[in-house]
Amino acid sequence: MPTATETQIPLSLYLWKRIRQLGARSVMGVPGDMNLELLDYIDQVEELSWVGNANELNSAYAADGYARVKGCPGVIVTTMGVGELSALNGVAGAYTEQVKLIHVVWTTATHVQAKRLMIHHNLGPDPDHKVFEKISTHVRCAYAWLEDKATAAAEVDRVIRECMLWSLPVYLFVPMDYVHVLIEASPLRIPIDLQRNEAEALNRTIQAIKTAKNPILLVDCLTDRHAATEEARKLADLLGFPIFSTSMGKTIIDETHPKYGGVYNGEVSYLGVKRAVEESDCILNIGPLLADSNTGGHTREIRLDQVILVEPRSCTILGTTYAHVYLKPFLQKLLVALQEITLPSIPLPTLPSQPVPADTDSKKIVQSWIWKRLGELTRPGDILIAESGTAQFGFPDATFQAGVKYITQVYYGSIGYSVGCCLGAAIAQGELQAETGLKNGRTILVVGDGSLQLTVQEIGTMIRLGLSPLLIVINNKGYTIERAIHGPQAGYNDISSWRHQALLNFFGARSPEESSREVHTKEEMDRVFSLKEYQYPRDIQLLEVHMDVMDIPWRLRNQITIVNARAKKRKAALEGSANGVRGM
Amino acid sequence: MPTATETQIPLSLYLWKRIRQLGARSVMGVPGDMNLELLDYIDQVEELSWVGNANELNSAYAADGYARVKGCPGVIVTTMGVGELSALNGVAGAYTEQVKLIHVVWTTATHVQAKRLMIHHNLGPDPDHKVFEKISTHVRCAYAWLEDKATAAAEVDRVIRECMLWSLPVYLFVPMDYVHVLIEASPLRIPIDLQRNEAEALNRTIQAIKTAKNPILLVDCLTDRHAATEEARKLADLLGFPIFSTSMGKTIIDETHPKYGGVYNGEVSYLGVKRAVEESDCILNIGPLLADSNTGGHTREIRLDQVILVEPRSCTILGTTYAHVYLKPFLQKLLVALQEITLPSIPLPTLPSQPVPADTDSKKIVQSWIWKRLGELTRPGDILIAESGTAQFGFPDATFQAGVKYITQVYYGSIGYSVGCCLGAAIAQGELQAETGLKNGRTILVVGDGSLQLTVQEIGTMIRLGLSPLLIVINNKGYTIERAIHGPQAGYNDISSWRHQALLNFFGARSPEESSREVHTKEEMDRVFSLKEYQYPRDIQLLEVHMDVMDIPWRLRNQITIVNARAKKRKAALEGSANGVRGM
Repeated sequence: MPTATETQIPLSLYLWKRIRQLGARSVMGVPGDMNLELLDYIDQVEELSWVGNANELNSAYAADGYARVKGCPGVIVTTMGVGELSALNGVAGAYTEQVKLIHVVWTTATHVQAKRLMIHHNLGPDPDHKVFEKISTHVRCAYAWLEDKATAAAEVDRVIRECMLWSLPVYLFVPMDYVHVLIEASPLRIPIDLQRNEAEALNRTIQAIKTAKNPILLVDCLTDRHAATEEARKLADLLGFPIFSTSMGKTIIDETHPKYGGVYNGEVSYLGVKRAVEESDCILNIGPLLADSNTGGHTREIRLDQVILVEPRSCTILGTTYAHVYLKPFLQKLLVALQEITLPSIPLPTLPSQPVPADTDSKKIVQSWIWKRLGELTRPGDILIAESGTAQFGFPDATFQAGVKYITQVYYGSIGYSVGCCLGAAIAQGELQAETGLKNGRTILVVGDGSLQLTVQEIGTMIRLGLSPLLIVINNKGYTIERAIHGPQAGYNDISSWRHQALLNFFGARSPEESSREVHTKEEMDRVFSLKEYQYPRDIQLLEVHMDVMDIPWRLRNQITIVNARAKKRKAALEGSANGVRGM
Repeated sequence: MPTATETQIPLSLYLWKRIRQLGARSVMGVPGDMNLELLDYIDQVEELSWVGNANELNSAYAADGYARVKGCPGVIVTTMGVGELSALNGVAGAYTEQVKLIHVVWTTATHVQAKRLMIHHNLGPDPDHKVFEKISTHVRCAYAWLEDKATAAAEVDRVIRECMLWSLPVYLFVPMDYVHVLIEASPLRIPIDLQRNEAEALNRTIQAIKTAKNPILLVDCLTDRHAATEEARKLADLLGFPIFSTSMGKTIIDETHPKYGGVYNGEVSYLGVKRAVEESDCILNIGPLLADSNTGGHTREIRLDQVILVEPRSCTILGTTYAHVYLKPFLQKLLVALQEITLPSIPLPTLPSQPVPADTDSKKIVQSWIWKRLGELTRPGDILIAESGTAQFGFPDATFQAGVKYITQVYYGSIGYSVGCCLGAAIAQGELQAETGLKNGRTILVVGDGSLQLTVQEIGTMIRLGLSPLLIVINNKGYTIERAIHGPQAGYNDISSWRHQALLNFFGARSPEESSREVHTKEEMDRVFSLKEYQYPRDIQLLEVHMDVMDIPWRLRNQITIVNARAKKRKAALEGSANGVRGM
């Protein structure tokens, strides 16, 4: 293995050093015969570590979770074909939800590629060894084949820059015969240039805000993905407007902020919220992502003439779009500009009181209680990861304190995501705590028994790494969200019956019996959360929460009603057609 | 849900009925909100059942295993995007290894697609809902979007026909608003036409065989994938030539056949085998797949002027290629033609005795013993599934009786494949036993502790379905095959330490303690296999076999030596370059 000199450095080492410069300290992935030598170089970079995952899909989910917590790109290494494709769905999720990911794929050597040899992990006879690169073209914003030592450094830098600017996944393909090749080391001395030009949209925004009668601030998830959470928080304090969030944008703004009015999700909002938002004449909407599940099934009704959309790569002000305006630098300049003007404080409209759930007095753990309660049980520094399913529809009811980070994959909605994500988030949290000295946060995973089955093995990695997340498994005997949508009794909504109390033992936890619990009642759950192991976890904990098979959150029920009503209307309109239409 | 009439039938029902006609009785997959209504129709088809899997990658592996055992296509259903992409790597494996697979994807409704709505599971803003179809283009031979009721039946039939003719995966995309649409039922009365024209290559083949001095028969895996195993066996008996197999072609021919000479794998063969094959002046080579791991790292030395290559869609006779000659019908006609001529019986050359392994006397379970022994422990009717890794390099040493089916994924080599495959194979075996009344076979999985971690959750499905495979887990503490290739002590070749004895309990087995065992010595392993539970399993069984971390099969050691020597030679040739090259 060659070593770096003053002027030259092995390509692999260059790559790892660049990645380390971005803030990443952990590399996810699964070793394969084509990437082993590359992995050797990780140890040569200070404070960079290999995290072996149980499978590649999980490693992509983990890298996604890691990136969301640390703000730097998540990194995964796979072997061409087999590993690369297994990770694809996880990368697609990061693409859809705009999470920075660097996927490094080690491939067959260039002379082997040129001969189209039938080497294992390839596709069919006469294989094009680069075919897998064509497959990932739809889930990345940039890629490079590092097969020219003269340009390799510049290519690495270009691709990483795109990853940072777009906040999207990128791919780097390294043929085996380029792992050790020596390239120019000098670019490493200069950090990658991430500067962008912000635009003239600023004045127009200031004008719109100054002349508005009842402006509000509406914060959505892309604010966080594009690393502008701090700016959004300062903006909230500086503007003094009523503040609303979306389902995907939760915890960007402190939900105990005096001006915070709750989650706006179209018709799937608390009473009064939809009106309070949609009656504003100037909605400063930062980082919007307008997927169905983030807009109450597309029942968001905001006109272009009443909104300033601050998007990742453009800004649309009362109907006029300004291209090449980038979210974070735009907000930075806006903050500076706002300090020079005085704005009136706009009061938060009084919202009507919410209806009291019929099962409020239930001693059992019910949907109308658990999400709010889990919200109360979190505290600053905690990371809460919610799986797709009932948790995603339940947590908008929860109020989180400042400094709680809420992670969920609402748009892509790939079940099983949360378990891999939890691993990455816990690693990232540990690194942040080491870097800042603040050690008060916990990693809390809330996953259903159905979703858990897709990616469960990653809990073994959490145990191997000595992480201590709280794993809360909602056991309601199958895919409850799908029972609510269709087929409540159908066999396909059943799952295999696992013994969750034996999970930690199987995956090798230190003291599995002491760390595994199950609860049926509210009182039991509260008691568990009051334990020292849950307040200051030093070991992984598993809590199985038994809930009723057909109990679902009110938001899910409402959204299903909206979608079904729309389908019925459409069906009536298409009279004469025998097609049923459902588009939930 | 509309029902079928004399002349009309819901599209979904048409699809399932066609699939049932091909012989499939089980449908793999994971339910999702977009495919629930389609699944309702499965129950309407006699003898067609839904098998829910723990995740989509596993469902693709299971469908692959199912297809290999039953000969009909394996079928999987996923939801667009998230499920579809998770399965992709499993489909790619089926593509590479030529296994019939029908992947049915339920997608958003056509009007939603047309509007490019941001519906969950899609990619990014302004999403093209059909983008995922572009991603799978490289791992299928045909596909159709069923979005025109006038052509839907013909499209289903066309795609299924391609699947059968090419023995490759196909995709069917069904928008949600077409699930219930009524189409013409009449085509269902006529089975899909699978006739092909066989060719004039027949005479040339007969001539070559008749004039050969020392002809041999060399049987490879595509014989089985293209449903010509029976024909190959008859050919072996009829020809009276010496017979050889490949690593991937094992168990197509009865290995106790008097003319069987063993596995030919280039330089990675038993002593004398390479010479016996390569000195033949007429090698009838049926169903070849010439990947590195099936040719001793490309050390097969057979010239075109000494071989008849009977390939899936062509035949190359002593250097001349005849297109549009299909494997199975060609062999059928060859069998008929051969009955009219008399061929001399060619004796099997005497092979030198093989070297005695140095650790023959070991009481511990060693690589030089276990694979042969497992071969002896199988019996007619058994299906043995071997994972990529040491098992794949070890089992060529084993001799299997007629009627044992050996399954492994040598070319694509995706670790974790075997666990999903085992589920599908066990289901298919059960169906075959029910169809034929023969109930003597077992399903035996041999998987390493590392590979097991990728797809372990599918064991829960085996338990839910009441299957009783024998699960043999080789515990050698990590990725031993990769330690042999590179980094014997490297951390990336370590894995999380699971408690395998607790596996069956976690996944919900009926009597986990009684069914979980571990062994260290040969004697212990033999004793376990003599138990009634292993001879006539009525419940799932787990046997953890402890083996030495660095013990590897001789074939693996030889192949690594070959590959490294080649790399060294190449490196020397490229003097002046600093690149290391390794292409194993």
